[in-house]
Amino acid sequence: MSNRIGKILTLTTFGESHGKVIGGVVDGCPSGVCIDVKKVQEELNRRKPGQSSIVTQRKEPDEVEFLSGIFEGKTTGASIGFQIINTNQRSKDYSHIAETYRPSHADFTYTQKYGNRDYRGGGRTSARETANWVVAGAIAKQIIPEIKITAYTSSVGDIHLDKSYKNIDLSKVENNIVRCPDEEIATKMIDKIHQIRKEGDTIGGVITCVVQNVPIGLGEPIFDKLHARLAHAMLSINAVKGFEYGSGFEGAKMKGSEHNDIFNTDGTTQTNFSGGIQGGISNGMDIYFKVAFKPVATIMQKQSTITSDGREVEMKGKGRHDPCVVPRAVPIVEALTAMVMADFVFLNK
Amino acid sequence: MSNRIGKILTLTTFGESHGKVIGGVVDGCPSGVCIDVKKVQEELNRRKPGQSSIVTQRKEPDEVEFLSGIFEGKTTGASIGFQIINTNQRSKDYSHIAETYRPSHADFTYTQKYGNRDYRGGGRTSARETANWVVAGAIAKQIIPEIKITAYTSSVGDIHLDKSYKNIDLSKVENNIVRCPDEEIATKMIDKIHQIRKEGDTIGGVITCVVQNVPIGLGEPIFDKLHARLAHAMLSINAVKGFEYGSGFEGAKMKGSEHNDIFNTDGTTQTNFSGGIQGGISNGMDIYFKVAFKPVATIMQKQSTITSDGREVEMKGKGRHDPCVVPRAVPIVEALTAMVMADFVFLNK
Amino acid sequence: MSNRIGKILTLTTFGESHGKVIGGVVDGCPSGVCIDVKKVQEELNRRKPGQSSIVTQRKEPDEVEFLSGIFEGKTTGASIGFQIINTNQRSKDYSHIAETYRPSHADFTYTQKYGNRDYRGGGRTSARETANWVVAGAIAKQIIPEIKITAYTSSVGDIHLDKSYKNIDLSKVENNIVRCPDEEIATKMIDKIHQIRKEGDTIGGVITCVVQNVPIGLGEPIFDKLHARLAHAMLSINAVKGFEYGSGFEGAKMKGSEHNDIFNTDGTTQTNFSGGIQGGISNGMDIYFKVAFKPVATIMQKQSTITSDGREVEMKGKGRHDPCVVPRAVPIVEALTAMVMADFVFLNK
Amino acid sequence: MSNRIGKILTLTTFGESHGKVIGGVVDGCPSGVCIDVKKVQEELNRRKPGQSSIVTQRKEPDEVEFLSGIFEGKTTGASIGFQIINTNQRSKDYSHIAETYRPSHADFTYTQKYGNRDYRGGGRTSARETANWVVAGAIAKQIIPEIKITAYTSSVGDIHLDKSYKNIDLSKVENNIVRCPDEEIATKMIDKIHQIRKEGDTIGGVITCVVQNVPIGLGEPIFDKLHARLAHAMLSINAVKGFEYGSGFEGAKMKGSEHNDIFNTDGTTQTNFSGGIQGGISNGMDIYFKVAFKPVATIMQKQSTITSDGREVEMKGKGRHDPCVVPRAVPIVEALTAMVMADFVFLNK
Repeated sequence: MSNRIGKILTLTTFGESHGKVIGGVVDGCPSGVCIDVKKVQEELNRRKPGQSSIVTQRKEPDEVEFLSGIFEGKTTGASIGFQIINTNQRSKDYSHIAETYRPSHADFTYTQKYGNRDYRGGGRTSARETANWVVAGAIAKQIIPEIKITAYTSSVGDIHLDKSYKNIDLSKVENNIVRCPDEEIATKMIDKIHQIRKEGDTIGGVITCVVQNVPIGLGEPIFDKLHARLAHAMLSINAVKGFEYGSGFEGAKMKGSEHNDIFNTDGTTQTNFSGGIQGGISNGMDIYFKVAFKPVATIMQKQSTITSDGREVEMKGKGRHDPCVVPRAVPIVEALTAMVMADFVFLNK
Repeated sequence: MSNRIGKILTLTTFGESHGKVIGGVVDGCPSGVCIDVKKVQEELNRRKPGQSSIVTQRKEPDEVEFLSGIFEGKTTGASIGFQIINTNQRSKDYSHIAETYRPSHADFTYTQKYGNRDYRGGGRTSARETANWVVAGAIAKQIIPEIKITAYTSSVGDIHLDKSYKNIDLSKVENNIVRCPDEEIATKMIDKIHQIRKEGDTIGGVITCVVQNVPIGLGEPIFDKLHARLAHAMLSINAVKGFEYGSGFEGAKMKGSEHNDIFNTDGTTQTNFSGGIQGGISNGMDIYFKVAFKPVATIMQKQSTITSDGREVEMKGKGRHDPCVVPRAVPIVEALTAMVMADFVFLNK
Repeated sequence: MSNRIGKILTLTTFGESHGKVIGGVVDGCPSGVCIDVKKVQEELNRRKPGQSSIVTQRKEPDEVEFLSGIFEGKTTGASIGFQIINTNQRSKDYSHIAETYRPSHADFTYTQKYGNRDYRGGGRTSARETANWVVAGAIAKQIIPEIKITAYTSSVGDIHLDKSYKNIDLSKVENNIVRCPDEEIATKMIDKIHQIRKEGDTIGGVITCVVQNVPIGLGEPIFDKLHARLAHAMLSINAVKGFEYGSGFEGAKMKGSEHNDIFNTDGTTQTNFSGGIQGGISNGMDIYFKVAFKPVATIMQKQSTITSDGREVEMKGKGRHDPCVVPRAVPIVEALTAMVMADFVFLNK
Repeated sequence: MSNRIGKILTLTTFGESHGKVIGGVVDGCPSGVCIDVKKVQEELNRRKPGQSSIVTQRKEPDEVEFLSGIFEGKTTGASIGFQIINTNQRSKDYSHIAETYRPSHADFTYTQKYGNRDYRGGGRTSARETANWVVAGAIAKQIIPEIKITAYTSSVGDIHLDKSYKNIDLSKVENNIVRCPDEEIATKMIDKIHQIRKEGDTIGGVITCVVQNVPIGLGEPIFDKLHARLAHAMLSINAVKGFEYGSGFEGAKMKGSEHNDIFNTDGTTQTNFSGGIQGGISNGMDIYFKVAFKPVATIMQKQSTITSDGREVEMKGKGRHDPCVVPRAVPIVEALTAMVMADFVFLNK
């Protein structure tokens, strides 16, 4: 396995869904950065289960505890260890899951690859791991406070927010539980998720992320292009199936004469199909990208599946799962974006 | 800059468009692999300029020369150095480009970041670099001959091949110059590119890639998920704006009950929305993904732009450029896919 | 800072001497390795403070707790998180140390480099960190049980064990508190350390390490030669000033005709000046090397030193320190050796 | 194999002794560094075969050619490709070497590990590779011109230069062919090597390296301590058996009260047993270290050895080999030191 992300500013993580704790080590943070632990916790709270009626009703406090690397409120340059205690681990019987491969989960591939799999609650494959990323991302945000990162829900199923981020008031993302900054669309999305939950089903969605006030020069081509690293980070999130930045897949339909971003004399551009990145390096314009999430695989409907010895069985999801991961994934997208951006700020030095 | 890709099987490259040579070093290849140099050259020929009426009419032989690491036809385990001589470098006057930022190129960002820029023919930002990748990819293909990798052109502008790869005869990709395995659609695409060239314009497109006969177990979660590394590789290609695998952005509109891939008793699945990867690890089903290319920035029309000292000027592309990069990018997509797959075969050991 | 060691099998650590815990993450361990936690604890006990009259009299239980990556007694392939609680952290006043640079410690360099330094008990520079390494090394030993690693004290000050390891019964290392397998020399060493302690002084020493039953083929030249990685690991240990393997510095005095190891017909060699490594790769003969430790900088005598604002002051060590680190460093040398060897076993695949 | 060294400033190399060329790629060099190619060639000339009566009499021009990354005399930030043509490759019959393992060479281990070995002239194991390092080191020296790096021969066999570097005029290193800055000792060393050559034998030696004008703060503990990385680099050189810095192995005999370096009020120290590094970080004092070289394995005397099928045979070195590698290794030690120091200058940013 490979449990580390980043080049200079790195995060190494550990922990299973039903172990005692999950946690990580942030390495490469310079000394002297003031860390506001309350702000880290606030980011974690945005990801927390049980925060609203459209997410999983599991209750977990998800409180982060820093173990090293911060002294008298500031980083020391030493590695920052942290942990989050799993309060929700129960000693229930998982033996039925142990033998059954849930459809479109990682049960089959993990068993084939690793043999010895911690099947309790998904083990290492659980999206619980992303809580670690939110902690590291919250630190990264505090390292680069000048760069403003805002993600929001732009689609749930077939309900789309069909406006450019430029015509949206990004300060309204947290105004509703689905994290869509357009109140009208947000209401439709929430209704949709409620309905999907009632059906015992799940639904996919799309998150848009906007990065503003980016210095010119971030990105290290040829093989660490800024957008390539963002893509890598986003595709690392559970359930993500696609990434596009700037004009994205729509850009593939365009002509060069339409797509080229003509310069203003100050070096800014009149349009921004490039999405703030040219030749793998930020050009100072806004970076924006979209991330596609498939529907959660665990559904509360009966499905046919197989056991590890190849028998066909029926199974039905138990427990308290998200009907749509997108609202809780918004802070995760921001966190990984912050980690990538901070890493490139250091690489640029 | 970061000029290396891969973890175990790595490629480190060098060279500018108008330098004497470009080249690279493939490291991490085990000993005893038979290398058919002719096959490597054949892959390079698929990428070569001047190969047809719809690509750039520049003439370059693009002959690879191996410098080390192969002895008596087989790899020795030592690093494999290679080079491709640039025959097309001319001592013409580039001073007009030196001072002007071409719209939607990397001229502006490279100048801002690096200051001292080799502006001749795009220097290090030129897609000429991708010839190095095709060499490394051709070696990777020979390391993992059992894995079958096929890319093809699935869109040019608004002309789409609207069939699943399953309903296509993949052996026909090389039957036409646009590398679309459907003759009828291919003809439309070729016509489109001819027309775009006449207009002095360029057009974007999409490449689909299919990876078959993949062993179960490739991919190293959490942070080296197979699809995340594929995304990173694809977004490293010049002009790429998006990546999606399996159900992709369409999957974001679906319900879990539709999207889940139900198992057959042998561990294969009835559908394959997962795109051959679950939890970041290959499950033995076909891997398929799409890569979106924007239109080439260099157009043969007058455009307004600025100089490095902020003056507004008009410029018009010179020379022989691709009206659509997609046909020549097909072997590049395959090459990087082969490198990623071979790397994971080693990581899996 | 760089808090990670290893290429495939890696250890990332965190923690300060007087924080709540220290700990680490072992990544890259394959699944299915049986981990005997008791054996890990036994290795830690060999390093523990307070174990005898010749080491520091601090009392710390140093109990390791595994947090992830082990399920039903076996590794899962996931990252192995662990921690050791610091029971000895006291809320005493360290302000006098905060302002004073102890001679030949890292106080000066850390303050210059990082500014914000956790000065309590040495913070991140404390040799307490090496407890993490012993945990990781104990896991590595269980990954490669066939390779036998034995370190022992071969010098304390000017008292030397002047025999080759071949003429020593390596099973006797743990028979005495100084970890010298020759009873007579051991007694002299112990007396020496007792005397040094009485003087309020400290003394250096040398550890020899022998690695037996090594498979042929470990080591990845050119830049990951087996001995180069061992050297890197050993020089990472606090207080180490030198490393030599095989004939070492004595070899520099020899002629080729004396130094060459003549082959037996089975591929073994009659002599072993090469130290079991040729061209950076193990040849199946015993690997042996020596590691030089300087005397501990903290002495119980008055010394002149300076404060951070450049005033000259007198200071005297307080607390309970080791008069000689060598006996407690024996398991540390073994642990890092095990980590390096296990990493190369994986790299060789 | 692992053919890369460095973290930010890296060198990746390729090439065999009897291939067409050897070469490398320097990556991570910032843009705008003026590169004096003549100075690079001068460093190569210091390493060149045939330069004096005490080194191999092979003739090779060893001319470096830069292929990329330098534009109008300055680096561009792009990777710097370079090559050195092998003029001395002859198409002679190597079949006798192909089947015979030379004692204390890498023939046996390479054959066991890699199977397919380029046996001509040692192939990839040849010290010819170090010419690549000298090129990269010469670039590194130009990146950090303020840091002064001087290596010299301090021992040949049992002839030692028994003075501290402080009592030596380091400007005299190049005054004689053995590169020992003390004329009297140098003469003895040269006589010794002449005599050894006549005997058809070889002899080991020691190189001392001094690094002056080092900024405070270089080194990235815990696992990239400055001296640990220097040790790794030095042990990567062919024939090196040991490394010590500061007090080294002698320090292991000392007491803390003798060994501690007492501060002056300006932060410098009265003594420098620490060797300019404390806690893995440079403290601004001179860094000095010693590197032990074993005698070259190829001797012009008959030796018994074995063939790959286990037969005992007699062999005798042919060709033109160094009776003592130390004089030609002086620029190699400096080159790797420069690469390590430059890398840490970047890491410190």
